[in-house]
Amino acid sequence: MIIDAHAHVVAPEVFYAYRAQLLGSGGYHQDPPKLTDESLAQAAAANVAIMDSVGTDVQFISPRPFQQMHSAKPDEIVHRWIRANNDVIAKSVALHPDRLAGVAGLPLCAGAPVASCLDELTRAVEELGFIGVSLNPDPYEGTGGNTPTLGDEFWYPLWEKLVALDVPALIHSAGCYNGREVYSDHFITEESIAVLSLMRSRTFLDFPDLKIIVGHGGGSVPYQIGRWKAARLAPGLGKDVLEERFEVSLRRLWFDTVLYDQASLAYLFQTVGPDRCLFGTEKPGSGSVTDPDTGRSFDDLKPVIEGIGTLTDADRRAIFEENARTVFSRWKGPQPA
Amino acid sequence: MIIDAHAHVVAPEVFYAYRAQLLGSGGYHQDPPKLTDESLAQAAAANVAIMDSVGTDVQFISPRPFQQMHSAKPDEIVHRWIRANNDVIAKSVALHPDRLAGVAGLPLCAGAPVASCLDELTRAVEELGFIGVSLNPDPYEGTGGNTPTLGDEFWYPLWEKLVALDVPALIHSAGCYNGREVYSDHFITEESIAVLSLMRSRTFLDFPDLKIIVGHGGGSVPYQIGRWKAARLAPGLGKDVLEERFEVSLRRLWFDTVLYDQASLAYLFQTVGPDRCLFGTEKPGSGSVTDPDTGRSFDDLKPVIEGIGTLTDADRRAIFEENARTVFSRWKGPQPA
Amino acid sequence: MIIDAHAHVVAPEVFYAYRAQLLGSGGYHQDPPKLTDESLAQAAAANVAIMDSVGTDVQFISPRPFQQMHSAKPDEIVHRWIRANNDVIAKSVALHPDRLAGVAGLPLCAGAPVASCLDELTRAVEELGFIGVSLNPDPYEGTGGNTPTLGDEFWYPLWEKLVALDVPALIHSAGCYNGREVYSDHFITEESIAVLSLMRSRTFLDFPDLKIIVGHGGGSVPYQIGRWKAARLAPGLGKDVLEERFEVSLRRLWFDTVLYDQASLAYLFQTVGPDRCLFGTEKPGSGSVTDPDTGRSFDDLKPVIEGIGTLTDADRRAIFEENARTVFSRWKGPQPA
Amino acid sequence: MIIDAHAHVVAPEVFYAYRAQLLGSGGYHQDPPKLTDESLAQAAAANVAIMDSVGTDVQFISPRPFQQMHSAKPDEIVHRWIRANNDVIAKSVALHPDRLAGVAGLPLCAGAPVASCLDELTRAVEELGFIGVSLNPDPYEGTGGNTPTLGDEFWYPLWEKLVALDVPALIHSAGCYNGREVYSDHFITEESIAVLSLMRSRTFLDFPDLKIIVGHGGGSVPYQIGRWKAARLAPGLGKDVLEERFEVSLRRLWFDTVLYDQASLAYLFQTVGPDRCLFGTEKPGSGSVTDPDTGRSFDDLKPVIEGIGTLTDADRRAIFEENARTVFSRWKGPQPA
Amino acid sequence: MIIDAHAHVVAPEVFYAYRAQLLGSGGYHQDPPKLTDESLAQAAAANVAIMDSVGTDVQFISPRPFQQMHSAKPDEIVHRWIRANNDVIAKSVALHPDRLAGVAGLPLCAGAPVASCLDELTRAVEELGFIGVSLNPDPYEGTGGNTPTLGDEFWYPLWEKLVALDVPALIHSAGCYNGREVYSDHFITEESIAVLSLMRSRTFLDFPDLKIIVGHGGGSVPYQIGRWKAARLAPGLGKDVLEERFEVSLRRLWFDTVLYDQASLAYLFQTVGPDRCLFGTEKPGSGSVTDPDTGRSFDDLKPVIEGIGTLTDADRRAIFEENARTVFSRWKGPQPA
Amino acid sequence: MIIDAHAHVVAPEVFYAYRAQLLGSGGYHQDPPKLTDESLAQAAAANVAIMDSVGTDVQFISPRPFQQMHSAKPDEIVHRWIRANNDVIAKSVALHPDRLAGVAGLPLCAGAPVASCLDELTRAVEELGFIGVSLNPDPYEGTGGNTPTLGDEFWYPLWEKLVALDVPALIHSAGCYNGREVYSDHFITEESIAVLSLMRSRTFLDFPDLKIIVGHGGGSVPYQIGRWKAARLAPGLGKDVLEERFEVSLRRLWFDTVLYDQASLAYLFQTVGPDRCLFGTEKPGSGSVTDPDTGRSFDDLKPVIEGIGTLTDADRRAIFEENARTVFSRWKGPQPA
Repeated sequence: MIIDAHAHVVAPEVFYAYRAQLLGSGGYHQDPPKLTDESLAQAAAANVAIMDSVGTDVQFISPRPFQQMHSAKPDEIVHRWIRANNDVIAKSVALHPDRLAGVAGLPLCAGAPVASCLDELTRAVEELGFIGVSLNPDPYEGTGGNTPTLGDEFWYPLWEKLVALDVPALIHSAGCYNGREVYSDHFITEESIAVLSLMRSRTFLDFPDLKIIVGHGGGSVPYQIGRWKAARLAPGLGKDVLEERFEVSLRRLWFDTVLYDQASLAYLFQTVGPDRCLFGTEKPGSGSVTDPDTGRSFDDLKPVIEGIGTLTDADRRAIFEENARTVFSRWKGPQPA
Repeated sequence: MIIDAHAHVVAPEVFYAYRAQLLGSGGYHQDPPKLTDESLAQAAAANVAIMDSVGTDVQFISPRPFQQMHSAKPDEIVHRWIRANNDVIAKSVALHPDRLAGVAGLPLCAGAPVASCLDELTRAVEELGFIGVSLNPDPYEGTGGNTPTLGDEFWYPLWEKLVALDVPALIHSAGCYNGREVYSDHFITEESIAVLSLMRSRTFLDFPDLKIIVGHGGGSVPYQIGRWKAARLAPGLGKDVLEERFEVSLRRLWFDTVLYDQASLAYLFQTVGPDRCLFGTEKPGSGSVTDPDTGRSFDDLKPVIEGIGTLTDADRRAIFEENARTVFSRWKGPQPA
Repeated sequence: MIIDAHAHVVAPEVFYAYRAQLLGSGGYHQDPPKLTDESLAQAAAANVAIMDSVGTDVQFISPRPFQQMHSAKPDEIVHRWIRANNDVIAKSVALHPDRLAGVAGLPLCAGAPVASCLDELTRAVEELGFIGVSLNPDPYEGTGGNTPTLGDEFWYPLWEKLVALDVPALIHSAGCYNGREVYSDHFITEESIAVLSLMRSRTFLDFPDLKIIVGHGGGSVPYQIGRWKAARLAPGLGKDVLEERFEVSLRRLWFDTVLYDQASLAYLFQTVGPDRCLFGTEKPGSGSVTDPDTGRSFDDLKPVIEGIGTLTDADRRAIFEENARTVFSRWKGPQPA
Repeated sequence: MIIDAHAHVVAPEVFYAYRAQLLGSGGYHQDPPKLTDESLAQAAAANVAIMDSVGTDVQFISPRPFQQMHSAKPDEIVHRWIRANNDVIAKSVALHPDRLAGVAGLPLCAGAPVASCLDELTRAVEELGFIGVSLNPDPYEGTGGNTPTLGDEFWYPLWEKLVALDVPALIHSAGCYNGREVYSDHFITEESIAVLSLMRSRTFLDFPDLKIIVGHGGGSVPYQIGRWKAARLAPGLGKDVLEERFEVSLRRLWFDTVLYDQASLAYLFQTVGPDRCLFGTEKPGSGSVTDPDTGRSFDDLKPVIEGIGTLTDADRRAIFEENARTVFSRWKGPQPA
Repeated sequence: MIIDAHAHVVAPEVFYAYRAQLLGSGGYHQDPPKLTDESLAQAAAANVAIMDSVGTDVQFISPRPFQQMHSAKPDEIVHRWIRANNDVIAKSVALHPDRLAGVAGLPLCAGAPVASCLDELTRAVEELGFIGVSLNPDPYEGTGGNTPTLGDEFWYPLWEKLVALDVPALIHSAGCYNGREVYSDHFITEESIAVLSLMRSRTFLDFPDLKIIVGHGGGSVPYQIGRWKAARLAPGLGKDVLEERFEVSLRRLWFDTVLYDQASLAYLFQTVGPDRCLFGTEKPGSGSVTDPDTGRSFDDLKPVIEGIGTLTDADRRAIFEENARTVFSRWKGPQPA
Repeated sequence: MIIDAHAHVVAPEVFYAYRAQLLGSGGYHQDPPKLTDESLAQAAAANVAIMDSVGTDVQFISPRPFQQMHSAKPDEIVHRWIRANNDVIAKSVALHPDRLAGVAGLPLCAGAPVASCLDELTRAVEELGFIGVSLNPDPYEGTGGNTPTLGDEFWYPLWEKLVALDVPALIHSAGCYNGREVYSDHFITEESIAVLSLMRSRTFLDFPDLKIIVGHGGGSVPYQIGRWKAARLAPGLGKDVLEERFEVSLRRLWFDTVLYDQASLAYLFQTVGPDRCLFGTEKPGSGSVTDPDTGRSFDDLKPVIEGIGTLTDADRRAIFEENARTVFSRWKGPQPA
C-alpha cells in the first residue's frame, strides 16, 4: 500500500479567488468561497486521478502552503481562510474516504499566541476527522517579526494539544516576503531552523510522545549532519541540552521523501534510517514537471525509491506505509492485504 | 442613449485566483491567469445582460477598484496584475465593441514616482484603445505612507500625459488597510481629499485641459460645500490659490452619479449642475442590492434620475450621454439617433 | 428660543500663548495661563455680542477643537491644557449663566485608555456644571496610531459614564497632522468614520440611552446614504449588526446644522428628519466670513434655516430649541415663553 | 558701557498665541500674529526698563530659545515662526536703536540641509540689520534624528555665509522632547557637544575667521577641562585634529557669562580668559528670580562680575564691552565715552 | 591613608577577547574567558604597582565602564559579561585584599526592569564581598530607548536593595552609540541628567539612607549651579519637589574628584564641600597621560589636591579617606594609623 | 600536495580584544591591536603545527567569519577591523610563505555600496599578495536590512574587480543576530540563498570568468537538487534566466568540502563532480572536536576523503590540489613533485 503523507489539497482554482477577496476587502466581504459541489467533485476526482497515475493509494492532504497567508492582517481573514481550507479538505475526503485523509492548516497568525489556533485544531480533528496538522514555524512569512523557534516554550500549548489528540505535525512554512528568498527557498530554511531548534531544546524530553515530521527531507540538516554532530560534542557550544549524540537526537524526528532526486533520497535513508521516513511527494506541486532524463515527473517518487538498491523490502514497506500508520495513528485506513 | 461612465469589468471569478497567486508567491509564479476564451465570453455576456436589464447602452469599464492592490510588494506583481486587468478589459471590449469601452487601471505603486505608470497608460490608450483611466490617489491604500495629494506637483507627469493623450481620469481609491475604514468608506474619504487638494492648488491653471471625474458624487464635498465656500473667502485660510469662488472652482471637475439615492442625486445636480455630471452606476457592485422600497436594485439609477423633476430633458441628455462624450472624447461610439 | 448647540469658547487670545508654553517647555513651565478677570470678561462679552448680532439666545460652548492637541506629549500637558480650557469655559458661563453653558473637552490622549479622561469628565459635569462633552474620536490627530473606532468596546467606559451622568457627546475631531488633510478636512473624515463605525456596531444595543451628536451635519454620511442603505441590505457585507434598515439606524444619532449652505441643510433635514437635528453654528469660527450672495456671514444660520420652506414651525422649534433641551437634559435654562 | 550679548526678545505674550495657531492648524491658518504697535512698544519698553534696572546699556536680543520649535512639522510653519520672531526683534530694535540690536533666529528645520536657512539669515542681516545669529545645533530638539555635530562639514555652508557676512553665531539649543531632559538641561548638553565637536574638527582651520560664542559659559567644558586636556594628548584617542593643546583650542571660541554664580564665573574667567568672555545675562529669563542671599536677581550679573577680585579693570572692560564689539563687529553702537 | 574610590579593574587584555566572542557569537559560544591565574596575577600586580607609583593605598575597582555593553542583545550575553567582570574583580581583590576592594557592575540591560539585575547585585555583595556598585543610568547607551531617569520610581527596587545591603552606587554611564557623543562625552551628559533628575525627585525623601556618588565631579552640575539654584526658587518651574535650596539638595549626593584639573577641583570643593567629596582617579584610564606642564600624569591627583591651599588638613583627610569609609561602610580595611 | 582552501587565521587571542575596543569605544580609541611579533609568531606556528598534525601542506586563510562584524556601526570601525585582520593574515603568511596564503576579508558594511570595499580588496591583492576573498552576502548579519542577493546587479562592481584581479570569492556569511539562527546555522542559509540567487541570474553570462566558491559544501543546495532541477524546467516558475539544466548551472560554481561527514562528502562529489570541489577543513574551527567513532577530529578530512571509494586518484588530486590551483590562479606555490 502506498501512502503519500505529504500532499496538498487540489481545490478548484476559483477557491483562491476567495483568498483575493479576503485580502482585497480586508475582511469586509462576508461571501463564502464561490464553490459548487460539482467543482469540488471535479477537483477531488482530478486529484485521485493523479494518484492513480503514479500508483498512490492514499494521500494525506493539507492546505497549499504558500497560499496560507499567516502574515496577512487582520487576523480574522487568516482564520476564515484556513478554516475554509480545512472545510474544502474535509469535503474532498468525504468524497473519497478511502483515498484521502485530512491534515489541517492552523490559523496561527503573525504575532498571535499559539493558543489562538487551538480551537480550529480541535475542530479539524474532532469534528472533521483530520489526522494531523501542517505547522508553519514562521507565521510572519519572512516579514521580520521573529516568532520564537520551535524549541521555545512558546510552542508548548500546541505540543500539549497535539499529544492529547495524538496527531503529528508536519513542519512546513508558508509564504515568504523577505525579498531575498522565494517561498520555495524559505521552506528549506525554515525546516532547517526548526530541526536545529528542536535538537537543541528539551522539547522531546518534555513531550516524549510528540510526533514531528520535517518536510522536504529535513531541509539542509541531514546533508550538513557532520557539522551538527561536531557541534553537539563541542564543549564550548552549549546550546544543546540533549545528552546524546546528534544523530541519535535526529532520529526523534520523522522525515518525508519530498526530495525529487534518487541520490539525495538514498542519502537521506542512509543518514536518518528508513524507519524514520515517510513517503511523500507533494504531488501535484512544484515537482510536477517531467524529468527529461526519465520521462517521468520529478514527483513520481515511487519508482525512484523502489530503485534504490540499498533498501530492503521491509524498508520500503516502512517508508511507503508502515511509518505513516505509526505516525498518523488516528488514520484508520484499510489494512494492508 | 445611456452611457454608464463608471463601471467595472465583470471578469471570470477565477481571474482573482491569479491575484492570490501573485500575492502568495510574491511574483515567483509566472503562470498567466487561468482564463479561457469561453469564460471571458461568458463573463462579458453576463455584463451585457446586466446592462440590458436596466437599459444601459454602453459601459466604460475599469478594474474592480478594491482588488487593485497598489500597496502590494514587490511592485512587479502590481504591474503584472494591473496589466492583466487591462488585458481582460480589452478582451471584453473586443467582444462587445458597441457596448463596452475601456478605462485603464494604472500600476502606480506605493512609494513609486508617477512616471512609473506611464508606460502602461500609453499601452492601454494607444495599443488597447482605452478612453480613460481610473486613478487611485492613495497608492499606499491606507497603510501609512503619505502620497502627496492630487494638487501637488508630484502628479504633473501624469497630468501632462493625460492631456497629451486627451483622456480623463476617474478618481477612485482602491483597497484600504488602515484598520479604521473599510475600502468602501475610504473611497469617500479619498475622493474628498482629492477634490479639496485640487481646489486649493494651481493644477487647473497649469493644466486647463485636464479632465478629472470624481467618483461617488464627489465624496463629501458637494454636501459640505458651504464649509468650503466660506473657507475660500476667509482671508486667514490661505491654502487656496484659485482666485474665484469655490463653487466656480468645483465646476472645473466632473462628477459621476454613483450615489444610489434620489434625494442626494437631486442635491448633487442642484449643487454642481447637470452639465458637470456623468451617469454612472458601478453596476454590478456594492449597489447591486434590491431596495425594498422600490423593488429595484439600488444601482438601477436610470429611473431614479429620470424621476427627478427638477431636471430638464436637456439636463438628462447631458447626464446620460453628452457629458460622457465630451469628457471621454476618444470614445467614438455610435452617434445618438 | 434659539439654542446654538455647537459653539466654541471665545477665550482671550493670550490664552493660546499658554498652549505654546506647555508645548515649548514640554510641561516644565508651571505658570498658569496669563489671564485676567478683565480679559476673560471682555472675551465673554464679545461672545455674547456675537450671539446678539444674530439672535442667538444661548450657546453651548466647548474648547476650540483644532487647538486641543490630544496627540501632544507628554500626556500631562494635554491634561493641563484641557483642564484650563474647561476652567475658562466655566468662568465664561459663570459670567453669563443665561447665555452660555459648558460642553467639556476631554483629555483623552493618543494611546491612552479611555478611563484616563473620566476624572476630568466627572469634574466638569459635577463640579463645573457642564452639560455635555466634545469627543475627539482620533486622539492621534492623524499621526498614525490607530485608535479603535467608536463602535469598538474600547469606548465603553466612556459610554457608561456619559449615560450615568446623562450628558451627550458631540463628535468632533481636533487637529490633523497627516500631511494630506488640514484639520478642517479631517473633521468631516472623522465624523464619517465615527458614524459608520457606530452604525455597524452594537453600541446602541448595549447603551440605548447613549446620546451622540455628530458635528457638521454628519460628515459625508447623509449625502452618501444610498451607499450605506445598500450595504446594510447586502448579504455579503456583514459588518453591520443592527437588524434594521440603515436609515433607521442613522436616526439613533443626532446631527447639528453646521453646514453653512441652505440646500445642504434642507437635504439634511429631509434625510435624517428635523426631529434629530440641533441648531449649531460654530460661530465665531470657520464660517465667520461674509457671503457675498447674502451679505450675511455664512455662519448666521438662523435666517437660512428659517428660509427653508419645507420645514414646519414645529420642525423649527425642534431644531432651534426642543431637541437641544432633550439631548442636553442637564441644561436647566429658562423655559420658552 | 555694559553690553549684554545674550538676551532674548521680550515680545507681547499674545505673540506666542501665534505659535500655538501655527502648530494647531499645521500651517493652515495664514493670519499674522495679532500684534499691535502699542503692545510691541509696551513690550520693548518693559525690556528697556529691565535693562535700566540693572545698569545695562545695550542688549543683543534673539528669539526666546525654547519656543523656537525647529523640530515642528511641516517645515513651513517653522520658517513662518522664525521669520515672525525676527520681525518682532527688528521692530523692537527700531523703537530703541541705541539700546537693542538683533541676533537672528535661523529656520533650520529638523532634517533639512543647512542651506535652507540661509535666505532668512541674509534677510535678517542685510535687510533688517541684525548683527549675529542664534544657532541651535540640535534641530531635532531631542526627538531622535541625529543632526551632524558642529564639527561636521554639514555646517560649512553656514560657516561660509557667517564669515562672508561677518556675523557671529551664539550656540544655543531650543526645545527638548527626549523625555529625559527639560530644555534647560539640554542647553548645557548641546553646548558641551558643540564645543567638543568643534574642538575635534578642522572647522577653525578651514574657517579661521569664524566667530562662535558658546552660551551658558560653555556648558560643561570649562569645568571638565582636565578631562579634555588629557584626551588631547592621549595618543590612542585620535579624534582631535588640532595640533595644539586643548586649552589653546578652547580659546578659539567665545563664551558668555550666563552662569548666575560668582564662583563659577570666576572659574570661567580663570579657565578661558577674560579676553574670550562676553557679558550676557539672558535677562529676563530663567535667572530672573531673587537670590535670597543677595536680595538681587540671579541674572543681575553686573555686580557679581564687578565683585570678582581677580579681574582687572581692563578685564572688566573687555567682558562688559570690548569683546562684544570685537565679536559683533557689525554693531555700530555709540562709542565708549 | 589614600583611598581611591573610583577606579576600574585592570584585567588581562585577553579578557576583552571574551567580550568580542560573546558579541560575535551572539552568546552561542559557551567558553569562559581565556584567563590564567598567572595572567590575572600579573594584571593585578600591575594595578598595585600603578597605585604604588602615586601613593594610593587602596582602590575600589569596578568594571571598565565603556566596555560594559548594557545595550547589547541578547540580554544573556550582558549578564554573562558583567558576571565575568565581577568575577575578575573578586579574584583581583582576593590577591590583594589590603589594596583592592570590589565595586560591582550591574547587568541592567536596555529595556529590562531594574529587578533583573538584583540577583547579581546580591551575589556580588553577599558572596563576593563587594562594597558598592557602579550604576549606568542609560542602559540603552545612547541608542534611543529612553530609560526613566534616576528620579523615577522605576529605580526604586534598586534603591531598596542598595539600602538594605548598605552599599553605595557610583553613577557612571557605559558606552555611547548615538553618533553625536563618544562615551567619554556621554559620561558627563548622563551624570548631569542623573543629578538633575534626583534633585527634582522625592528619591531622597523616600530613601534617606541611599548613598549616591556622582562620577567625574558631578558632570556639569557644580559648574552650572547658579542655573539650578535659580530654577529651584522659580515659582513657575515646578518640577522640583524638595523644599530646600538647590545647594542644600546637592549635598545629599557624594562626588568624586575625577576632574584632572586643580582649578576645577578647587571649584568643586568650594561648591559642594570637601565633606561630600571622595578621592577618585580612574587610574589607569583616560587621564593616564603626562601633563607637560607638571611632568606628572593628569590622573595623579594626590599632589594636585594636596596643593589646593583652601583645603584644611581635616578636609584632606575627609577627601582622601574618611568620606570613603563613611560611604563604603561595608569596607573593613585597615584603620588609619 | 594537500591544499586546504577554506581555513581561517589563527590570531593571538588578544587580537579579539581589539575588536571589543573598537565596538566599545565606537571607534573613539585609536590604539592598534596589542599584538607583539612574538605572539604573532606563536599563533602562526600553532597553525602550522595543526596543519602538520593532519598532513596539510598549505592553507588559504581568511578572517574568522563570525567575528567580522559587518553590521557594526559606525562603518569606520568595520574598515579598521577588517584591515587589521588582513594585516595579521599577511604577517602570518610572511612568516610561513610556503605553508600559508591569504584570502582577504572585505569591509562591506551593512547598507554600504559594494564599491566601498574595493580599495581594501585592491590593497589586499596588490600590496599584500592575497589570492582570494571571503565574501559575506549578508552584511546586515541577520539584523533585517535586506542586501540584494548575489544575482543582483548590486554586486557587479565587485565581480568586475574580482575578474580584473583574477581572484576568486569564497561565499561565507559572518555573524547572525536575527534571534532565530546562530551564526553557524546562518552560514548554511546564506550559502543556499547565494547559490539560488546566482543560479537564477545572468551573473555568469555577464561574468563568465567569475570564480565563486561556496562554503560548507554548498549549503543545502546539492542535497535539495531535485527541487531545483524541477523548478528550472517548470514553465510557470520563471525566475531562472540560464537556459540550461540546473545541474549544469550548478557546475559553474565551486564547492569546498567543509562537511565533516563521509557520506555527505561522497554525496557532494557524486552530485557536483570532483572536478568542482576544493579540499577545505576550516581547521581549527567548529569541526575541531574528536569524533568518538573514529578517534580523529571531525575536521581531519583528508583520511575521510581518501576513504571514499568512488573517487579515483585523479579525482583526489583534483580535490586536494589541482582545483585549488585552478581557482586560486594567483597562488604560485611549489609545484607538485
